[in-house]
Amino acid sequence: MITGKNYIGNQLKASGSNTFKTINPKLNIQNEWESTEATSEEIAEATELAWQAFKAYRNVSDEKRAEFLNAIADEIEALGEELISVYCTESGLPEGRAQGERGRTCFQLRSMAEMLKKGNWRHTDIDTAIPDREPMPKPDLRLSVIPLGPVAVFGSSNFPLAYSTAGGDTASALAAGCPVVVKSHPMHAGTGELVASAIIKAAEKTGMPNGVFSNLNSRGIQVGQQLVKDTKIKAVGFTGSIRGGRALMDLAAERPEPIPVFAEMGSINPVVISQKALENGAAKWAATYAGSITLGTGQFCTNPGLLLAIDSPELDQFASTLASKIVEIEPMVMLGPNIKSAFSSLKAEVTSQNGVEVITSLVSAEGNFADQAVARVSGASFLENPKLHQEVFGPFSIIVSCKDEAELIQIIEGLEGQLTGTIIAENEEISSISNIVETLSYRVGRVIWNGVPTGVEVCPAMNHGGPYPASSDSRFTAVGLNSIKRWMRLISYQSFPSELLPKELK
Amino acid sequence: MITGKNYIGNQLKASGSNTFKTINPKLNIQNEWESTEATSEEIAEATELAWQAFKAYRNVSDEKRAEFLNAIADEIEALGEELISVYCTESGLPEGRAQGERGRTCFQLRSMAEMLKKGNWRHTDIDTAIPDREPMPKPDLRLSVIPLGPVAVFGSSNFPLAYSTAGGDTASALAAGCPVVVKSHPMHAGTGELVASAIIKAAEKTGMPNGVFSNLNSRGIQVGQQLVKDTKIKAVGFTGSIRGGRALMDLAAERPEPIPVFAEMGSINPVVISQKALENGAAKWAATYAGSITLGTGQFCTNPGLLLAIDSPELDQFASTLASKIVEIEPMVMLGPNIKSAFSSLKAEVTSQNGVEVITSLVSAEGNFADQAVARVSGASFLENPKLHQEVFGPFSIIVSCKDEAELIQIIEGLEGQLTGTIIAENEEISSISNIVETLSYRVGRVIWNGVPTGVEVCPAMNHGGPYPASSDSRFTAVGLNSIKRWMRLISYQSFPSELLPKELK
Repeated sequence: MITGKNYIGNQLKASGSNTFKTINPKLNIQNEWESTEATSEEIAEATELAWQAFKAYRNVSDEKRAEFLNAIADEIEALGEELISVYCTESGLPEGRAQGERGRTCFQLRSMAEMLKKGNWRHTDIDTAIPDREPMPKPDLRLSVIPLGPVAVFGSSNFPLAYSTAGGDTASALAAGCPVVVKSHPMHAGTGELVASAIIKAAEKTGMPNGVFSNLNSRGIQVGQQLVKDTKIKAVGFTGSIRGGRALMDLAAERPEPIPVFAEMGSINPVVISQKALENGAAKWAATYAGSITLGTGQFCTNPGLLLAIDSPELDQFASTLASKIVEIEPMVMLGPNIKSAFSSLKAEVTSQNGVEVITSLVSAEGNFADQAVARVSGASFLENPKLHQEVFGPFSIIVSCKDEAELIQIIEGLEGQLTGTIIAENEEISSISNIVETLSYRVGRVIWNGVPTGVEVCPAMNHGGPYPASSDSRFTAVGLNSIKRWMRLISYQSFPSELLPKELK
Repeated sequence: MITGKNYIGNQLKASGSNTFKTINPKLNIQNEWESTEATSEEIAEATELAWQAFKAYRNVSDEKRAEFLNAIADEIEALGEELISVYCTESGLPEGRAQGERGRTCFQLRSMAEMLKKGNWRHTDIDTAIPDREPMPKPDLRLSVIPLGPVAVFGSSNFPLAYSTAGGDTASALAAGCPVVVKSHPMHAGTGELVASAIIKAAEKTGMPNGVFSNLNSRGIQVGQQLVKDTKIKAVGFTGSIRGGRALMDLAAERPEPIPVFAEMGSINPVVISQKALENGAAKWAATYAGSITLGTGQFCTNPGLLLAIDSPELDQFASTLASKIVEIEPMVMLGPNIKSAFSSLKAEVTSQNGVEVITSLVSAEGNFADQAVARVSGASFLENPKLHQEVFGPFSIIVSCKDEAELIQIIEGLEGQLTGTIIAENEEISSISNIVETLSYRVGRVIWNGVPTGVEVCPAMNHGGPYPASSDSRFTAVGLNSIKRWMRLISYQSFPSELLPKELK
């Protein structure tokens, strides 16, 4: 049941007067339930509880933390139909996606739990003493990692489950030993509260300290700002726009004690298609990319927004097939009116630039439904106009016809940092294309050979991040088991008695 | 031979007109050689060369990079007596220290080379494909790390070799595959140029690309500021004061493309001495700490500036023995007049605070020589006065007499982040002291049992860093083999042909 209240630790509270309702994007009407924004006092209470909880939670064993994470997954599943229905109502996403994303969310939690149970997941180094070393004895030194402290998590709009309340940031921070305070996404406050109730139930059932988790409703930016400035918050996880992420980075950097922010932000995910691939499979790749561009109404951070190739008749064929395939797809609803209007205006801005030609026929899409489109531009026009380099969040992609390989490489070198880069090519081209691959590798966090960037596996070898502005710190990943490293820091123990060493260093 | 010029890549250049001389702190006179500050154009040329060099250097094999690092160590040794003599003249540090620090510098370079040669130093993860997974096939994913790009290194004043031109930051960045542009420390421009000449010789002998290393003279802050703002610089390494480090952090955070800064800054390195340790060894520990506090004229970032214990007659005995032992030590020269005057004024500020009593007799020290001192204050006075928490860079320490364990823990919890924390205790106290140890662990980067914080081993298990302001990012270390991780970022290869994978992922 949605109460509209905040979880300040284990307590439901709503002493504030700022209330708001989420929107059903399909029907473009407000949903019934009303949420109350957290007050300044409630935020401070949540971070104080998190700080107190940290002192106990950091010493909870890996096994007990694993139990907690598994219990969260169980409790999310126990929410049953209500969660799926509220998710669909607040996001406009279809039921199959809701179920898939719930599965991913639980899988992430359980994978982290599995890693904790295995026990050898921390980076450790042990250098034993050399008492007779000259000129000075060498002391015993042992390196491990400990949690940073309470983490503020900002959920994304486009993954109301997997990258929100109990998503990757929360799962990895809780696994690391950090209490979490979530700033709930205003577009899915109901979904967020339901998931928060599951986390609180799991915390109570597994005996976790009060304050290990809080969930704060917000309709404006004040809740998030106060949270990032709060001295008891020691790190921030964010998934969303460049503007939003950068604002948090700036706030965190300005604190008397700056704290790390891991922000996974925008990306246009360039795709390079070779001449041979166009010759051999233009139609196949056009169909594949029509699907990738429109997947989830184009609202994936790995959505391919930029298709690069050298000008040729085969590229023309690819372009026209992609254009015709993509308009055959039934328009889908976007996450909300603000996202739809941002899509429309950004698409209009990009397609009105010099030299840009829309190659799709007009798609009729009303309300919050998205009219997918593909545009085309020359390499020269693309190079000289940074407006064409920005992300158009939604089902839109731009084909850039380069005059030659040199121009193609120049375009790749000039791109901002990206989450992904994809190469579509034939195996016989491996040696001739290696220069392009190397150049692309240094602009992106993940390179893909003959595939699509959409679809982000949850596994140890995944990197979801990349050079700024794809993410705020390319040395860490937001997805996969390595994401836990964002919330832990190094500590060395010198000449320590075994009884005082953490388990992994004994 | 010192030319006073900048190394802009392999070329000696000095087109500017801002010249300066270093100071012989012992004699308090200017040294003969004159250095020319790098001009704005020279800085831009150095970063452009570094950017171009990066494209080649990032593909230089681990084996060849190891050769380069070993060659730097050889060339530094080949500088022979001239380096030792200029080092001593510019720093006032004794010849034994110069030789020791040169040894440490070469050891750091050779340890990094050894790690590169072993080959398995990168964090990698490999998840092979599961083509028949339902509902979607799982692609092959392989994770590794690649270098960030050109790194700006700001050498420290207190380690003219080991944490300066060819120090830990330079060694680890070059090992990672990042070109380095050093902003030479104005207090040891001659030492810096000599070391730079060794790096350039090594680069030429081992066939490294021009621009892999540059050395810029600076007398003011403009050279460093321009360097950190330069779009071709992708990370910063700094060792020095909190004020200096924070200024660079702020500059880097304000860039259109923010970049990571690893700043190793100040610390007062708290030491907790138990009642039993005082009962059994007050005199021994007092003698040990008189040595640690004055080591290198107290100019170590791990200098123990804060001694915490519960009030007792044994603490009185420890304090009076420490006071008498420390004044027996012959006053030593500081690194320069600015450092001496900062020491004097900070010591005066701290010792004039309410409740602070200087317990050492007056030491006579003229010119740039330091008059070491120990003060004492009650826990209550310390708690209420943040001025007593600041670092006094030099041979000075303050003993805090706490009224009980609760006050001691409150003091530890209220400290800013520290590089180190030390516990002096008897083994029979292990269980009773564990709460103090745990509290201290969460404020520091390295905890030491029954030792001194001075002395930082170069080994895999070392952490030299800690919560802000000990360092800018507690997730990384400035010393030891793990320091290379500061300059590398993650990359995933999805479904990649073996021929295009880096060696470590094949």
